[in-house]
Amino acid sequence: MATEQVLHMNGGTGETSYANNSTFQKNAILRTNHIMEECITKLYRTTLPECLKVADLGCSSGPNTLMVASTIVKIVDAVSQTLNQDPPMFQFFLNDLYGNDFNTIFKSLPDFYKRMEEEIGHKFGPCFISGTPGTFYGRLFPNHSIHFFHSSSTLHWLSQIPKELNSEAGKSMNKRAICPTSESPPGVHKAYSEQFQRDLKVFLRSRSEELIPGGAMVLAFIISDQNHNIKGWEVFGGIFNDMVSEHMVEKRKLDSFNISSYFPTAEEVRQVIEEEGSFNIQRMEKTIYDTMESVMEIGNEDEDTFAERLTKTMRAATEPIFKAEFGEEIMDEYFTRLQSKIIQLHRVERLKGANLIVHMTKDT
Amino acid sequence: MATEQVLHMNGGTGETSYANNSTFQKNAILRTNHIMEECITKLYRTTLPECLKVADLGCSSGPNTLMVASTIVKIVDAVSQTLNQDPPMFQFFLNDLYGNDFNTIFKSLPDFYKRMEEEIGHKFGPCFISGTPGTFYGRLFPNHSIHFFHSSSTLHWLSQIPKELNSEAGKSMNKRAICPTSESPPGVHKAYSEQFQRDLKVFLRSRSEELIPGGAMVLAFIISDQNHNIKGWEVFGGIFNDMVSEHMVEKRKLDSFNISSYFPTAEEVRQVIEEEGSFNIQRMEKTIYDTMESVMEIGNEDEDTFAERLTKTMRAATEPIFKAEFGEEIMDEYFTRLQSKIIQLHRVERLKGANLIVHMTKDT
Repeated sequence: MATEQVLHMNGGTGETSYANNSTFQKNAILRTNHIMEECITKLYRTTLPECLKVADLGCSSGPNTLMVASTIVKIVDAVSQTLNQDPPMFQFFLNDLYGNDFNTIFKSLPDFYKRMEEEIGHKFGPCFISGTPGTFYGRLFPNHSIHFFHSSSTLHWLSQIPKELNSEAGKSMNKRAICPTSESPPGVHKAYSEQFQRDLKVFLRSRSEELIPGGAMVLAFIISDQNHNIKGWEVFGGIFNDMVSEHMVEKRKLDSFNISSYFPTAEEVRQVIEEEGSFNIQRMEKTIYDTMESVMEIGNEDEDTFAERLTKTMRAATEPIFKAEFGEEIMDEYFTRLQSKIIQLHRVERLKGANLIVHMTKDT
Repeated sequence: MATEQVLHMNGGTGETSYANNSTFQKNAILRTNHIMEECITKLYRTTLPECLKVADLGCSSGPNTLMVASTIVKIVDAVSQTLNQDPPMFQFFLNDLYGNDFNTIFKSLPDFYKRMEEEIGHKFGPCFISGTPGTFYGRLFPNHSIHFFHSSSTLHWLSQIPKELNSEAGKSMNKRAICPTSESPPGVHKAYSEQFQRDLKVFLRSRSEELIPGGAMVLAFIISDQNHNIKGWEVFGGIFNDMVSEHMVEKRKLDSFNISSYFPTAEEVRQVIEEEGSFNIQRMEKTIYDTMESVMEIGNEDEDTFAERLTKTMRAATEPIFKAEFGEEIMDEYFTRLQSKIIQLHRVERLKGANLIVHMTKDT
């Protein structure tokens, strides 16, 4: 099935929903705050629009969805005060794939408006919010119609499984794994990396057509880095492998399945942006974060709680795609195993992940 | 509860859903086609935008939701051909209240795009679709950002129950009825009419701020007219009254309930538009339609099928609001009675309804 049709976070507001399990992604967004502030301040001061138009790409559905809007409104409000003028109108476009749960976002808007009025006060100007479904690997908005794009923890999802992985006979060259691993045949890593590069170029080209001259973009990537030790999809694949050995998952299914996701290095991201050529990189910042801190309250070091939360986070983000392939009936068992695996890995060495935040602008 | 929070068509795609019971509203939209053609042709020829921006207000969720988009794309495509130039890009905003089922609309978009490409061919340019939730009795879009507004069978829903209906002690002056009737105390009809006028003025003022100079609007109203004989909400109220007599509905509940809906006359609509002053009426057309024909295939005169379909239509549009007030448990019984009542009325005299279509433009 096409990635576009099965990829979405778990909907609704229940126990396994993304809405209730997205602290990890929230912290990823928070890590962009200082760069957002620098970027939006400069953008607003130089363009001073009557209406600031912003799109958040891959917004998902949960408490994080409106965080970017709220952050931007507050930054612009503060800048307006220093300029001694009224803040502009805002138009926010929330984008995600067609299967995203937009209803839950939309029902939360009256509360969002109320909260913003309480926080910002009576000067909080009209703020128009729309949902724009569709893939960001292609056009989403008219030419020159957006001032600022934001996208966080999204661009590791590819538009499709690299076609090169399958032979003409339809056999996958990457058996028993769901992603490139150190044991993958030559060509697997290359196929993933090239798919990522093609996708990111289409993304950049589309956004540059949609941005007004002088517009800007802040992207946050989950990356591969020598200083972090999370093996990402390898851990997920390992559990499926165990379940094949125990006859709980058909070997045939695992052999043919590959995940449409790739974690690039910072260098790869820089190279694609430079090759594509529409944007100037203003700042590029790598963060190594402690995974436990990214899902727990400060000071809480309980490893069971940690493993449970991290598992729920991963489940909310991956269950729709795994379910479509391996069936709903093994999901509980699968994620119970993931939870044990997390504890096991954490005991060997504290888990760390890596983010890359890029602030870039389009030429005026 | 505020109208805004309970008013929405029945969601999903099940038997009582609006999606499956909206032929009536579809026919109301079809009746606007010749005026849409006249309006869009003129608008497109005079503005020739790179991207034509359109909003459909009160779009609901079902097969009708994308009808307006599809109609406009086809009209513009035909005009472009006569002008021997490529069609523009399109940006459509689908608006309805926060509780509307946008997820079902968004999931249908890939099929919509496919169908349009098949019908229009390869020249079908980028068509960007967003959902914009919120009340149209207020601002929804930035200043001067829309070329054309459409709204059909929506403006009889008021923003609220007229406040004048309730005494200071919170008692309704309109007991045993849910709308103004010939037996209502003086003041009830006036309160409804004035609420309608206030609401329509806010609507017109908001749209005129959002339209580009020279922008246009086509509105279709369900109206009261001496040449039609549907008593509208009186029939609905009568059934609640019967159920009070049979102790199936609490008298207290009916006494305090009024519907937030009003069917104006054509003259009232004209007067409000003229008084508000932002728009020039280009054309105003009244249609008296046969209710049976508006829910049945041509030539099908079976009265049981007719009553069943009309009941389902009414149920899809009113159940959320009645359920919130009178409880889900009486809904099946209520609509069974409505179905019998429709047959009874139809046997006395063939049912007829009235529409008013207004094409208006904003000064350039």
